[in-house]
Amino acid sequence: MNVAFIGLGNMGLPIARNLIRAGHTLTVYNRTRSRAAPLESSGAQIAATPVEAAANAEALITMLADDRAVEAVMFAPGNAIQALRAGAVHVSMSTISVALSRRLAEAHHERRQHYVAATVFGRPDAAAAAKLFVVVAGAPEQIRFCQPLFETVGQKTFVVGEDAPAANVIKLAGNFLITATIEGLAEAIALVRKHGLDQNAFLEFLTGSLFSAPVYRNYGGMLAADKFEPVGFKLPLGFKDNRLLLAAAEEVAVPMPLASLVHDRFVAALAQGLAEADWAAIGHISYQNAGLKEAT
Amino acid sequence: MNVAFIGLGNMGLPIARNLIRAGHTLTVYNRTRSRAAPLESSGAQIAATPVEAAANAEALITMLADDRAVEAVMFAPGNAIQALRAGAVHVSMSTISVALSRRLAEAHHERRQHYVAATVFGRPDAAAAAKLFVVVAGAPEQIRFCQPLFETVGQKTFVVGEDAPAANVIKLAGNFLITATIEGLAEAIALVRKHGLDQNAFLEFLTGSLFSAPVYRNYGGMLAADKFEPVGFKLPLGFKDNRLLLAAAEEVAVPMPLASLVHDRFVAALAQGLAEADWAAIGHISYQNAGLKEAT
Amino acid sequence: MNVAFIGLGNMGLPIARNLIRAGHTLTVYNRTRSRAAPLESSGAQIAATPVEAAANAEALITMLADDRAVEAVMFAPGNAIQALRAGAVHVSMSTISVALSRRLAEAHHERRQHYVAATVFGRPDAAAAAKLFVVVAGAPEQIRFCQPLFETVGQKTFVVGEDAPAANVIKLAGNFLITATIEGLAEAIALVRKHGLDQNAFLEFLTGSLFSAPVYRNYGGMLAADKFEPVGFKLPLGFKDNRLLLAAAEEVAVPMPLASLVHDRFVAALAQGLAEADWAAIGHISYQNAGLKEAT
Amino acid sequence: MNVAFIGLGNMGLPIARNLIRAGHTLTVYNRTRSRAAPLESSGAQIAATPVEAAANAEALITMLADDRAVEAVMFAPGNAIQALRAGAVHVSMSTISVALSRRLAEAHHERRQHYVAATVFGRPDAAAAAKLFVVVAGAPEQIRFCQPLFETVGQKTFVVGEDAPAANVIKLAGNFLITATIEGLAEAIALVRKHGLDQNAFLEFLTGSLFSAPVYRNYGGMLAADKFEPVGFKLPLGFKDNRLLLAAAEEVAVPMPLASLVHDRFVAALAQGLAEADWAAIGHISYQNAGLKEAT
Repeated sequence: MNVAFIGLGNMGLPIARNLIRAGHTLTVYNRTRSRAAPLESSGAQIAATPVEAAANAEALITMLADDRAVEAVMFAPGNAIQALRAGAVHVSMSTISVALSRRLAEAHHERRQHYVAATVFGRPDAAAAAKLFVVVAGAPEQIRFCQPLFETVGQKTFVVGEDAPAANVIKLAGNFLITATIEGLAEAIALVRKHGLDQNAFLEFLTGSLFSAPVYRNYGGMLAADKFEPVGFKLPLGFKDNRLLLAAAEEVAVPMPLASLVHDRFVAALAQGLAEADWAAIGHISYQNAGLKEAT
Repeated sequence: MNVAFIGLGNMGLPIARNLIRAGHTLTVYNRTRSRAAPLESSGAQIAATPVEAAANAEALITMLADDRAVEAVMFAPGNAIQALRAGAVHVSMSTISVALSRRLAEAHHERRQHYVAATVFGRPDAAAAAKLFVVVAGAPEQIRFCQPLFETVGQKTFVVGEDAPAANVIKLAGNFLITATIEGLAEAIALVRKHGLDQNAFLEFLTGSLFSAPVYRNYGGMLAADKFEPVGFKLPLGFKDNRLLLAAAEEVAVPMPLASLVHDRFVAALAQGLAEADWAAIGHISYQNAGLKEAT
Repeated sequence: MNVAFIGLGNMGLPIARNLIRAGHTLTVYNRTRSRAAPLESSGAQIAATPVEAAANAEALITMLADDRAVEAVMFAPGNAIQALRAGAVHVSMSTISVALSRRLAEAHHERRQHYVAATVFGRPDAAAAAKLFVVVAGAPEQIRFCQPLFETVGQKTFVVGEDAPAANVIKLAGNFLITATIEGLAEAIALVRKHGLDQNAFLEFLTGSLFSAPVYRNYGGMLAADKFEPVGFKLPLGFKDNRLLLAAAEEVAVPMPLASLVHDRFVAALAQGLAEADWAAIGHISYQNAGLKEAT
Repeated sequence: MNVAFIGLGNMGLPIARNLIRAGHTLTVYNRTRSRAAPLESSGAQIAATPVEAAANAEALITMLADDRAVEAVMFAPGNAIQALRAGAVHVSMSTISVALSRRLAEAHHERRQHYVAATVFGRPDAAAAAKLFVVVAGAPEQIRFCQPLFETVGQKTFVVGEDAPAANVIKLAGNFLITATIEGLAEAIALVRKHGLDQNAFLEFLTGSLFSAPVYRNYGGMLAADKFEPVGFKLPLGFKDNRLLLAAAEEVAVPMPLASLVHDRFVAALAQGLAEADWAAIGHISYQNAGLKEAT
């Protein structure tokens, strides 16, 4: 397939690479052009602008950091949305607000373009291994059309609705549950540690019984060690997603006190200088408030 | 093994049954004697008092509702602890306070008896199927001695320390993480429902990807249906465990705001008349505060 | 003084009236022009546009609902900021974001205009009685120049800094403390009522002893009656201020869990259909969660 | 009046002194007898036991630290309740649980003694100055009988019901509102400080306008200075009251999330080694989580 790919960050780069490997023809664009260079030798075209990237695409994939970045690419003067031809599909993989996703759906519809939200779960290593979980919403025929793309980048695709923003709601809800897990684990580990017990034995029990899920293993390890690197997902990005979640909740009047607690943790973590850490570092605030010094 | 078994509630009865089936000799006691009757035909002796039950036991297992019940059996005048012979081991399976577990450890030690805390995870159906997870702490040689008992009632045993109360801390921490999961799921489902999405599709995604753990499947189903029966674990019992957790946290000065949120949910659920529901009904408060009427 | 006054809502109208009474020459503008009519007979000029209002003013006062309204008046094409002459002062009374206040300070500075933030505390009846509390920040000589205006509309003026946005921070912090008071009172009244005691006797004690402050009397009465009218300050406006507070807190990395709790209350209140009530209705959620039906 | 006075701590001593000054005949008892010595020269009798103190009293006043202390004095073998003659009244000034107050009411009733709960608000200096606020509940004729005592120790008496435990509920609710005020002020001051503003100017505004109440002045000063001495009310005693409040709330199923937040603050403060500070030090946690180092 003729694919335009915009956004070559920690997640975008390995995803684009997998698409090239699978035989798709990619024209890639990244604001910092040097990030695109490694793909050139693999056969990708490097576009100088979003417009140039989008011009001949059957599918335009965006994988960008936030609403602002997507708006800049899609809606700024001389933007990708004008260059995209009618009948082409925009596959939005970025974690963006539900509101922006809705706006994109409408803008594409007006131009007789298609729009599918295909959010992804998984950290950069999962992206590289094509082990992402892909959560998709949009018109069924478009999802069918894009299915080969999803299969190339992920291990499993979940269709959650025909209205594209549905996938963004699910993405935010999923990320919220990850932060809820981090918060729960952190509080529990603080308790276990201050009772003089071994947090690793505790974690082994959890992941060997009721909580035998990847999220508990991945974040549990970081939390047990009280070490929040290597950074799979930077704390301020996680905070951004928490903000988007609270906005999506406010929009439909759903109070989410646990999400508010997580919000407070993000703010505290930034106040403690943890902006460069993995987002699991929100758990460190529990340790600090419990007077724990460092993990043993 | 010659086993005294005290406490034949929803959990105790199937556990005792499995021990009998495995060939152990059981003398059982239950305050409401009629609950013991079904075991008589299977070959169990029915004791009229805790003392009678404990008298000849190599191992005394208690599986009771709360601290008060354990204290009544073990420490009340003419109690089991005096009847238990030196060298015998008390295997405490009840979810009790860390403080009482510590008191039991000391009292048994004084009498040259042994004490092992062997808390269990799983609902009554898991107990019947001998699929419990057993979390054990105590002296290694006692744990070895009791291992056949643990293997009879559970699918997996986790040793978390040599100091018996450790198992009680882990039990409370584990139950806390279940409530944290319930709270997180409930808030997320409220969000998903009010955005007009299908909560079952959401749940399918969760349990088919990052949250592929029993806890998410079991409680997710109840929460998606907004139906909190059949009752595996009654709400007031869950509240009791939350109280024990907060007490254990206070004892070592660990603030647990998520546990406090869960506390508030239990109180609200009782105020809404949900005392007979499964403890997952704490999630119903999220639906109510979001103005959701009933699941569709 | 030659005063342009923009924004004749529940607060703006009585303030403008008091300024006219004190002998100032007012040119007023309101988007819905009919709201300005009653002032015409008192001698005010009615301007057709913000530009027309601002053109000859020595002081331009804005008293608008939110950031958006202030931006529309000040920064939209053909806006008031271009019409205001150099040396004139913009007195911003609206409760706006700290960020917008900062932006206004800079924009006025570039045009050699002056900018003073003069936020006000008090409900419409206090505005009518010229009993507002005025919290002011800006250059000392400008504050001196505007002092007669402040004295006309308020009972007391507090100068909190030379940097105008300081007054906006204080305004948001003050409103936060009002919501904290409402939340505290509501929880306490729920407790008192469910213990079968008289909430009015409780309130009498509070306001007759340690909490003898206007806020406790005003909101206490509403909360004791569980009646949230007449509406002095509409719930969604209070929610807006809560959002501005959380944004101001996020900007400098200050976690405010009590503000987050209040946020959740606002969302719940909207979910319960309380958008038309006074903002004290966030306290009704405490009653509802406690299973209280109606006050007696 | 012939008064037995038990409990000569920070509050009891100045109260007893004022009663002596007013001409009442006091027989005093304190566990640590040396605390009673200074009263001897003023004409008080020193009793060797609670029983001896209570024997001839018309009114028995207890002013003790907690439930345990009151139980020890009143219900322990050879206790005061047996020594108190029929028709005498027990005036309980201690901050105790609603449950213990109810138990006392019943026990006195059985013995044809009377029982009045007369809880007090104010710190030791207010006790010395006879400026306490006295919150009373009990049978009207008993309250009338004790009125001279209340007037001697306080500046104002509030009768809140005929059922004695009512005064204990109100006491706990009042103390809760003080902690709510501390928490609100601390969060607001953290915000103000991190915006580079002067917290003292902020406080001056608050106490000079909407929050012109003693509580804001007293605790505001400590919080603005981030100094939690001199200690008027020790942090662990405040924590005890928070626990009693949460128990009273649980008893009637009232969720109090703000009280839970305060609970978490107490736990965190103890984890940070603030057990010797005034209870206003729970506000220090807000500063710490905001990354504030020390007040300027």
